[in-house]
Amino acid sequence: MELLKERILKDGSVKEGGVLKVDSFLNHRMDISLLQEIGKEFRRLFPQPEINKILTIEASGIGIAAITAQYFDNADVIFAKKTKSKNLDGELYSVPVFSYTRGIPFEVQVSKKYLTAEDHVLILDDFLAHGQALKGLMEIVRQSGAQVVGCGIVIEKGFQDGGQLLREQGVNLKSLAIVDSMDNGIIQFRE
Amino acid sequence: MELLKERILKDGSVKEGGVLKVDSFLNHRMDISLLQEIGKEFRRLFPQPEINKILTIEASGIGIAAITAQYFDNADVIFAKKTKSKNLDGELYSVPVFSYTRGIPFEVQVSKKYLTAEDHVLILDDFLAHGQALKGLMEIVRQSGAQVVGCGIVIEKGFQDGGQLLREQGVNLKSLAIVDSMDNGIIQFRE
Repeated sequence: MELLKERILKDGSVKEGGVLKVDSFLNHRMDISLLQEIGKEFRRLFPQPEINKILTIEASGIGIAAITAQYFDNADVIFAKKTKSKNLDGELYSVPVFSYTRGIPFEVQVSKKYLTAEDHVLILDDFLAHGQALKGLMEIVRQSGAQVVGCGIVIEKGFQDGGQLLREQGVNLKSLAIVDSMDNGIIQFRE
Repeated sequence: MELLKERILKDGSVKEGGVLKVDSFLNHRMDISLLQEIGKEFRRLFPQPEINKILTIEASGIGIAAITAQYFDNADVIFAKKTKSKNLDGELYSVPVFSYTRGIPFEVQVSKKYLTAEDHVLILDDFLAHGQALKGLMEIVRQSGAQVVGCGIVIEKGFQDGGQLLREQGVNLKSLAIVDSMDNGIIQFRE
């Protein structure tokens, strides 16, 4: 997605430890016009009419999923939670996930009420690196008996192995921008 | 907002400890059509053309703010973070807040890059009860020198004192539904 790549080059920055900062438009300040274009592009990449649930994970995925859902005919958004809350009770799907960003493990949780074997799910997230969060979300869909129609990622770090491993397993994974290298602070995209 | 009140009566449920569960349409599963109507209503309630930033807090506020921002002419969304992250560096506004929902204190954090003295801010959140998160967000805006144009809340618990105290202080606070009582599990709205 050229508009996104241009924006990453213009406003993204590379920090120590392989961190690509896009907090100026994606995951702290959100440029809603850009999110709308991202939503339309996800719709183009995932035209399957059976998609009826968009699953993401708090926090940065929520805005992307909410805006994107508007371009689907009939899709609710469910955002998985990372912490226990009084707002989440009853029976839960729960999968442990290790966060490289935060350096700690956490439980990805979704209420069993909102995912069933009849659902066709598009999973969305802002970043894919090692793929831990995405694997956790896919495992939750598997537990529910629903089908993963596809996984849409805004920015994939192609120099980490999450995306490659998932594609080798046959996952219908599509990323709007794949960063293949950030050596010396220079961002290079996959063609 | 009648549509919202009807939905709360239909799909909300009252749990022990004064918890109003609306996870079926607002803060776990999100009904995007409803969020669009909520966004339009916030626009009607806050017509001030100078609003250029919508500030909320992760996680449940993000979807509401992202959808709502589409009905404003030129407003970015900033979502305050509750935890340290590698994605947030540089100078921060930081305010300690006690969460009654989670039973623990946390720091509300916003990068100084994204709020300045020139900004006119609409603060949005899903719930208002004791008002701790809202007061934290208002304090961050105060630190930045920006102006709070108003605060929009989807559901206010009118039987807790956050809303009353803020209105007494002159805050331009508007809630789409105010629950005045949940005694015996029966939800009663303020007229």
